Amino acid sequence: MKLIKPFLILLLIAISAVTFSQQKYALAIHGGAGNITPQNVPPEVRKAYKAKLEEALMAGEAVLKNGGQALDAVTAAIMVMENSPLFNAGKGAVFTADGTNEMDASIMDGSNLEAGAVAGVSKIKNPILAARAVMEQSPHVLLSGNGADAFAKEKGLDMVDPSYFFTQSRWDSYQREKKRMEKGDKHGTVGCVALDQHGNLAAGTSTGGMTMKMHGRIGDSPIIGAGTYADNNTCAVSCTGHGEYFIRYAVAYDIGALMKYKGMTLQQAANEVVMHKLKSAGGDGGIIAVDHKGNISLVFNTSGMFRGKVTENHEMQVFIF
Amino acid sequence: MKLIKPFLILLLIAISAVTFSQQKYALAIHGGAGNITPQNVPPEVRKAYKAKLEEALMAGEAVLKNGGQALDAVTAAIMVMENSPLFNAGKGAVFTADGTNEMDASIMDGSNLEAGAVAGVSKIKNPILAARAVMEQSPHVLLSGNGADAFAKEKGLDMVDPSYFFTQSRWDSYQREKKRMEKGDKHGTVGCVALDQHGNLAAGTSTGGMTMKMHGRIGDSPIIGAGTYADNNTCAVSCTGHGEYFIRYAVAYDIGALMKYKGMTLQQAANEVVMHKLKSAGGDGGIIAVDHKGNISLVFNTSGMFRGKVTENHEMQVFIF
Repeated sequence: MKLIKPFLILLLIAISAVTFSQQKYALAIHGGAGNITPQNVPPEVRKAYKAKLEEALMAGEAVLKNGGQALDAVTAAIMVMENSPLFNAGKGAVFTADGTNEMDASIMDGSNLEAGAVAGVSKIKNPILAARAVMEQSPHVLLSGNGADAFAKEKGLDMVDPSYFFTQSRWDSYQREKKRMEKGDKHGTVGCVALDQHGNLAAGTSTGGMTMKMHGRIGDSPIIGAGTYADNNTCAVSCTGHGEYFIRYAVAYDIGALMKYKGMTLQQAANEVVMHKLKSAGGDGGIIAVDHKGNISLVFNTSGMFRGKVTENHEMQVFIF
Repeated sequence: MKLIKPFLILLLIAISAVTFSQQKYALAIHGGAGNITPQNVPPEVRKAYKAKLEEALMAGEAVLKNGGQALDAVTAAIMVMENSPLFNAGKGAVFTADGTNEMDASIMDGSNLEAGAVAGVSKIKNPILAARAVMEQSPHVLLSGNGADAFAKEKGLDMVDPSYFFTQSRWDSYQREKKRMEKGDKHGTVGCVALDQHGNLAAGTSTGGMTMKMHGRIGDSPIIGAGTYADNNTCAVSCTGHGEYFIRYAVAYDIGALMKYKGMTLQQAANEVVMHKLKSAGGDGGIIAVDHKGNISLVFNTSGMFRGKVTENHEMQVFIF
């Protein structure tokens, strides 16, 4: 009997520790990984990226703080980045070898493994909304090209002339940036993962693909299991990097598989995939992920990744290198 | 010392058992899963399917028997089925809601995790050859639509007018079959997995997609990790069924993940994914798989799956129900 009291105290301490380490909500974003160094991203450019990352985090957090859905938080944060010319998604999409813009996006609901994606769209202002419409309003998971554009239009999404994705000043600065940042900045995909107060996870990714990619090339961003995955039992993941490797290694799915089948923590699983498997294969890039306890991992094997995070108990932070 | 002799005898027996259970080569194919019952597939139709499945097995086995590559065996077997109007791939591709044919295919080399795929192509006689060209002659993994057709043409593949995929007699018999087989025969995807004498695994899948699918819909067949996966360390998998579920559950990758992370056998992993995960979610379909020892699994949760297998030590067998 004498042992019961100290045992109970220890138990209470343990329970509190678990409770405090568990976040009611958590959100992470990325704006692309690559050859991003202090040398090729000057201070004024860093400031602009950090401000936009914070704006995206705020948009997502506002949803979660009010008890909203992880899916809505992911959508809100990604739309902020799609609407900014700073990122290679939506408004800032890079150009294909043919001089056109072809965008991809995907979203997944970890509560029921529902998912939607679009590939090679060129007229939808916010591809992430089209991905969501495919999930919620079609029997399919992935629509591509003209069929996807037509579907989005039918569903009443904001359509734009392909020229929306081109502005002279952005083209000029893109050309300057391209020279300055050399060939390292091929990516700039955006993504978001979220845990909401209901315990649901969601992940989304949006991209303009690789600069100078072949017409019709689809990378990992619209591929559920490669660029995006979410499962309430494990984690939500969004990827950025050399998409072909992320497809071949089923990166987004593999991180959750290592958790559920091998008992790894999120951080262990993310490290295993990004820092070992991908790195040894030559697959450049990174991932953001959140698990069902609100633990966040931001892992990349490149010199930098535009990224940020916020949880119930921790103020937002944004990082580049 | 007295114990050594019986121990050595036991060791020799064990080694022989392993040697005999290991196949030098192994090959399996499928021609689609679905509502395939003795009632809706009359004897004369069964005979035609079985003959074509045997022809495909022979084409693949000829490569393996002569010491050829698993990749070449997969390509050869799939081409036989693509060239037959019996299957929903190549020549027999079903029609989209718009009355067109949009085909998908993918292939993966388990020795190096290289992969290639095409989606939504309409002018390539053998989509599996285009998938292979993407793998071997482009920096990408997945090309779609016109871009993929243009790439295949540039690489010198046999191009056909889209009308190649339509013949009046096939259309008529398709209409008759459609009535007879009701709504169950939406699929008919073809696939092949192979282990060659060098210990390499390969998998490939080719399809016309779902009948009456929306223009631009991409199913699991061209998605590495969903419809196709191969890794020498685990197994090679090709899937057929309701593609949206196979994407959401990353089916082809998951079977190998259960083997390498949980230590399951191929058969256990295939059962877990097809008979438990997919079935409880309502995902109809099946898989064919071969592991690095030449064990073959043919698992489906529908009433039938056109399928066949052959190994070094076992004569070919084909099955429908």
